This record gives sequence, structure tokens and C-alpha cells, in this order.
Amino acid sequence: MPVRSTDAPGVTEPHAPSTASLWTLPGGLRVAFERRRTPGFAFDLRLPTGSAHDPAGQEGATGVLEEWLFKGAVGRDARALQDAFDDLGVRRGGGVGLEATRISISGLGGDLDPSLALAADVLSRPNLPDAELPILQDLARQDLEALQDSPTDRLAVASRGLAFPRPEGSPFAGFGHPASGTPAGLAALNPAALRDHLTRFGQTGSVLGLVADIEPQEALRLVTARLGDLRPGASDTVPAPYRADVRAWLPDEDAEQTHLSLTAPGVSPGHPDWLPWQVALVALSGGSASRLFHAVREERGLAYAVSASPVILGGQGFLATYAGSTPERAPETLEVLLAELSRLPRGLETAEFERARSGLHASVTFGAEGLRARAGSLTRDVALFGRVRPLSELRAQLAALTLERVNAFLAGYDPVGDLSLVTLGPQEIVHA
Amino acid sequence: MPVRSTDAPGVTEPHAPSTASLWTLPGGLRVAFERRRTPGFAFDLRLPTGSAHDPAGQEGATGVLEEWLFKGAVGRDARALQDAFDDLGVRRGGGVGLEATRISISGLGGDLDPSLALAADVLSRPNLPDAELPILQDLARQDLEALQDSPTDRLAVASRGLAFPRPEGSPFAGFGHPASGTPAGLAALNPAALRDHLTRFGQTGSVLGLVADIEPQEALRLVTARLGDLRPGASDTVPAPYRADVRAWLPDEDAEQTHLSLTAPGVSPGHPDWLPWQVALVALSGGSASRLFHAVREERGLAYAVSASPVILGGQGFLATYAGSTPERAPETLEVLLAELSRLPRGLETAEFERARSGLHASVTFGAEGLRARAGSLTRDVALFGRVRPLSELRAQLAALTLERVNAFLAGYDPVGDLSLVTLGPQEIVHA
Repeated sequence: MPVRSTDAPGVTEPHAPSTASLWTLPGGLRVAFERRRTPGFAFDLRLPTGSAHDPAGQEGATGVLEEWLFKGAVGRDARALQDAFDDLGVRRGGGVGLEATRISISGLGGDLDPSLALAADVLSRPNLPDAELPILQDLARQDLEALQDSPTDRLAVASRGLAFPRPEGSPFAGFGHPASGTPAGLAALNPAALRDHLTRFGQTGSVLGLVADIEPQEALRLVTARLGDLRPGASDTVPAPYRADVRAWLPDEDAEQTHLSLTAPGVSPGHPDWLPWQVALVALSGGSASRLFHAVREERGLAYAVSASPVILGGQGFLATYAGSTPERAPETLEVLLAELSRLPRGLETAEFERARSGLHASVTFGAEGLRARAGSLTRDVALFGRVRPLSELRAQLAALTLERVNAFLAGYDPVGDLSLVTLGPQEIVHA
Repeated sequence: MPVRSTDAPGVTEPHAPSTASLWTLPGGLRVAFERRRTPGFAFDLRLPTGSAHDPAGQEGATGVLEEWLFKGAVGRDARALQDAFDDLGVRRGGGVGLEATRISISGLGGDLDPSLALAADVLSRPNLPDAELPILQDLARQDLEALQDSPTDRLAVASRGLAFPRPEGSPFAGFGHPASGTPAGLAALNPAALRDHLTRFGQTGSVLGLVADIEPQEALRLVTARLGDLRPGASDTVPAPYRADVRAWLPDEDAEQTHLSLTAPGVSPGHPDWLPWQVALVALSGGSASRLFHAVREERGLAYAVSASPVILGGQGFLATYAGSTPERAPETLEVLLAELSRLPRGLETAEFERARSGLHASVTFGAEGLRARAGSLTRDVALFGRVRPLSELRAQLAALTLERVNAFLAGYDPVGDLSLVTLGPQEIVHA
């Protein structure tokens, strides 16, 4: 069989006996499979083209194309195709992200093969009727208008565009627009350009995570039969040079709140500091005992919402911090956020470390519980780490991690030194 | 043992062998327990006091009180209490809804008893430090300001308040304010009034859903030991007389979109038409092949978001329909929504019926998958239906349901005849 097998060691969970396998089809598609005793199935197909891959000047191309794909395939018109999905009683999820587009389907076991067949039809043999395009462009414009009504969404997009600007001459539109595009980009779309964009969607760089109660060889056979002839496709990393010197204010005189977005460098997946960074982020923002929650919300009542979370762009890890406060108290909120980030290099205390580790331990267990979530983790593991990380390995790594190791990492981690800051609200924050 | 046992028949799932038990403690707390082979546990405690139960003039009381409860208990200050939760590595959820407040905790098996103990401490023996109140009032004000920046949230609150107005003389504030309250209601809060409000939080009308891998008798023993001495509490249905003649427009000249909210009568839980209504709602709005999605979005591109969902208030079921459109196309959007609701009495087609049933069948299976979700379902079943509905029974009912039965119900279901309509946007919709 012309399949490269890189089976992971068998993973046995007390609650969900399972073995994960990883294969690469001859065409390049990587398939991560885990068997579970379950009446259902779930798969998550990740294609490495997202809104950042929109051709420059055609912002919205990936988002509109993804909708267009579902407007009929292989003799079925749009309505018949959607009926076919619904007839199976499956649930369809996914959509267009920054760097990838996902098709996620889950349902009852017997419907796995027809569901794979429908996904393959949509990707390989879509009708792409010209008449539907104007409607999809219209819907995308409406989504952009709704986004204008959401200060947090507007800030998130603007902050990303400023911190990760498009390099001169890049063929890709990059990170500074929402998946629905821009008015100019949407206006520039046409059937020929989108059909050309579709050639990116193929096996290269793509990953299918699958959980079902079938033999591994049967899973491989089904996936190969249905997706083995998917076109080659393309996989590119959109350049995302980080700018650490951004200081920007988006005026919004009608906003009741001032919203703050801070971006800072982080750790990349696969780097030895990845796990220490994760533990530090939990201590910083992972629960009601976390540093940000306490300093910003509980002790001072500065902001109702405050959070810091990891973001991965172009394979690099970043720290994204957000808070929404009153215009009057926004300067103090910013000061407290900066103070908390500044004291990270001084390290965690023992109790903080133990708490963060317990929290991660529990989330490893709960995160593996649902079929859909597990299929998503399989895909994410392969996309980010190049392999399936067995749960037992994650637990063992957590158990072996020491406070000294985390603090040795933190001693050299200074997010404030390379900070990008964007705010949105009625007034600019004058920061000392 | 002084415990009334109303054990449900054993429920056996192929993927998750389990038996559900339902007990009522002497003090009134109902406990629904299901055993699962799992390294984790999850419980969901529902107390029948929500934001609708805020005393009139003290809007925000329940929301602020719920936060205040976590500001220390039994010798632990706020920080130590939050550390205690986080030390266990448990995840805490829940919060204040319209008619109930929930405390949901999940974690690894050995931490079940200490987690129950912490929940009991918070409810029965909280510190309620006066000094924390102003900070919590401030945070609630900030949440209200953030809500002002969200047109959909503002519309939802206003629409509820208009369709379900507070009856003259009711001691309860009712449904016309968000959980964070109102500026005037928050200003009126004081320690004595909130301590008085806390006396509502007890066993009467409360339900604990619990999933763990322990013997049923052990579960009952743990829950009784930890929560058996919880105060009696109070359970009241907030009167919610429905007004079918509301026609209101909330002007918002800065809004890019016009948002529409339609409320109509539905079917109440436990009524024989409940399941036929659920199936009809899936056909109306449950997927990409649903009527609303097709008519509003796919065929006409009128709105990016459109949905209809069941809402239960005061034990009565209602249908809530929402769409966001451009100001120019809002009148047509409204027309299409009304047309779709108007043709419900003509019934479903066979294919629509089968699709909706398949969808519900799959969601019964997937909904029972996660521990947290299952604990929540146990609680919801007891609160809404007075018992745990075994999954096998739900599946059997779905299998036995006929198109004729659904259409016989729909023939007498005319949501448009008793419709309440509220819009928010730059212009009023002039409707023929």
C-alpha cells in the first residue's frame, strides 16, 4: 500500500480506550485517526488557506469561495446539496479562519462514508454557479456592516492589521481584514478569480482528523477512496512580520467603553518553552485566581472583561491581551495590565504554578471528551506539532514540569519590551 | 433513609453505560445522578432565582449577589476562596440567568467532594464583606455600558421587557433588564437588602445534576452531607403575561444594521405538542436546509444572520425570531419572516420532517456526550420536565413521531396571529 505510516504509539485512556494513527496519502493529505467506542463519528478537515491568503486586492475571496462551494456539486443544486447534508442528520461546522479553512462534520456512525463523499464533492466537483456570487458578496457586505457595530471585533481586526502589516509586494492580503473581506476587495471578486483561488484547496498541507468506531484500516480505506483524488492544492505561510512599536487609537465617539488590545511575542508550538509558556498564561489569565482577573477586575473593578490568550500566526506564538473599561479608567487599566506583564520575569509562586498545572491537567482530560473536540485536536496537533500528541504524553509532561523550569523561562520573557498597543474608544489614552 | 427515591428506569447507552437516579432530600433539593465510567465529574446546581426575581427597584440584585457570594466564605477571604477553587483544578461555570442562578463545577474525580464543599460554603456561609459591594456595583455598571455597545443585546433585552411587561404591583423586577441590572437599580443596592435576597437561595425548587464514576448511594451520601443543610430558600414563578400587540422601534442612528426581533407563543415543556413543536422549529431554523435560512439568506441575501429558537419563560414556551439586515432591506426581511411563519400551519413536507427528525436524533446523542453537558441536561430535565428523560425514551419518541402528528399540531399553530415585533436601527420599518 503506497501509504506512509507513522503510527503513534497506542494511547490508552481509562475512559476512552483509543489508539491514534497518522498516515500520509500519496497526494499529501495527512490523516489522523482515533478509534472510539461511540455510536457517532466526527471529522475535521483543515485546508491551509484562510482569509490571510486572500489575494491582495481581493479581500474576502476565501470567505466568499467557501460559501460558494456549498452552492451545489455533482448534479445537485444548492438546495439539493444542503438537503443531502441535512438528510444525513449530520452537523456541519468549520469555516474560514485566518490561516486555514475547515470543514467539520459529525453524525451517527453509518453516515461517515456519505459525509466524506459530500465533503469530497464540495471540494473537488462544486458547481460554482455564477448567479450566486452577487448574493454571497451581498451577504459578506452585511457581515462587514454588523462587524462595524461591534467595537471588540473592530478592534481585534485593526490590532492584527497594525501589529502584523502586509509586507510590500506580498501576493497575500494578510491579517488586516476580517474573513468577510473589505468593501473594495468584495467588489473586485469575479468567478474566474475565485475559480483560480480554489486551486489552492487540495491535499498539500491539509490534515483530516477523524474519530469513529471502525478499524484503522477501514478508516484509511474510506478516506483514501473519498479524498485520495483531491487536487494537489497549495500551502503557503503568509508572512507576518511582527511590529513591536505600534501605538494606535481608533476614535469612536459613540462607544460607551474604551477597549484595549495589547500584542506581544510569545512561544511557538514545538519550542521547548511551549509548555512553560502555557502554564504561565494560565497563571496570568486562566481563572478566577489568575493575576489579570485579580488585579484588573477583583481588586480594582477596572474592567468587566479582561483576558490574555495565546495566538499563533505564521507558526509563531504571540500573546494577545484585551480589556474593556470606562473611558475615565482606561489609563489606569492600561497601567495595571503593563504592570502585570512586567512582573512575569520575576516568576510564579509555588501555589500559582500548582494551580495552573492542575487546571491544564483537567483541561487535557475534558478537552479529549467530546468526539468533535477530539477530531479538532487531532487536526490541530498535526497542523501545529506535526504529529498527534497522546494524552498520556501531555499528562506526563505536565507531571514532570517544575516551577524552576517555568521560572527559568519567564526570567527571559519580557512581553512589555516588544509591545504593540491599539485602543478604541471616545478618547485617546495618554500613557506616561 | 429519609430520602424519597424516584429512580428512573435504568438507562443503558451503548457508548456510555449509565443509570440515572432522582432523589429529593428532606430539605427539598432534588438530585439527579448518572454514573459514567470517566476520570472526571461534573455537577450543575440550579437555584430558581434569577434576574427576573430582582426586587422591583433593585434591578441587578441577583447578579451582584452572585458575585458577592464568591468574595470569601468560612474563614477564607476572596482571594483564598478563589485559590481554593483553582487549587482543585476544577472549572467553574454557571451564573445568573433570567429565572435561575447556576453553579456548575467540573474536574477530576477525587475533587468531587471538596468541590461540593466549596459550593456549599459559598451558598450557606459566605463572608459578604461590605467593602466589596461598591466594586461589584461598578463592574455591573461597566457591563451595562458594554451592553450599550451591542445592538443585538440591547434589542434582546428591550424586546423581552416589552413582550413580557412587569404586572403592576409585582414584587419582582421581571424580564425587562439585563442580569447586570439598571443604573438606578444598582444604585439602590445595599448590604442589608442583598443579605435578605440571599434567603431565596436554598433547597426549595433547586436541582443538582451530577455525573461521576461512583456508586449511586455514595453520590447521595456526599450530596446530603454537603448540601443537606442548605437553607429552605424560596421558589416563585415570576409572572410573565405575554403581550401580543407590541410594535416598537428603538432608534439608533449610528447602527449600520437594522435588527428585528419577533416573539410569538409556543409550546410549554411537558405538553403533548412539545416534540412536534421542536421538530417544526428545526425545519424552520435548524440548519442550512431550514426554511428561514433559505428564504432570508440563501435565496434573497437579505440578512447575514437569521434564526428562530424556543424560549421558556414562566414555564411557558415562546418562539423568538431574530434577523439583522441593512436598513434598506429590513422591510423585505420582515415580510419574508412573516411569510415563513404564516405558512407553518400548512405543515411540513415529508423530506423536511425526516431531516428535522434526523437532526434531533443526532443532537440527542451528541448532547449526552460531554460530562458538563450531561450534568446540565439532568438539571434541565428535572427543572423543566420534573424528571430525567432517559435518552432511550427520547429516541423512541422521535422514532414513533409521524409527519401526520406534526402537521396536525401545525394546522392549529399560528404564531403570526399573536406576534410581538421590536426593531432597532436608524429607521423605523414601515410595515404594510
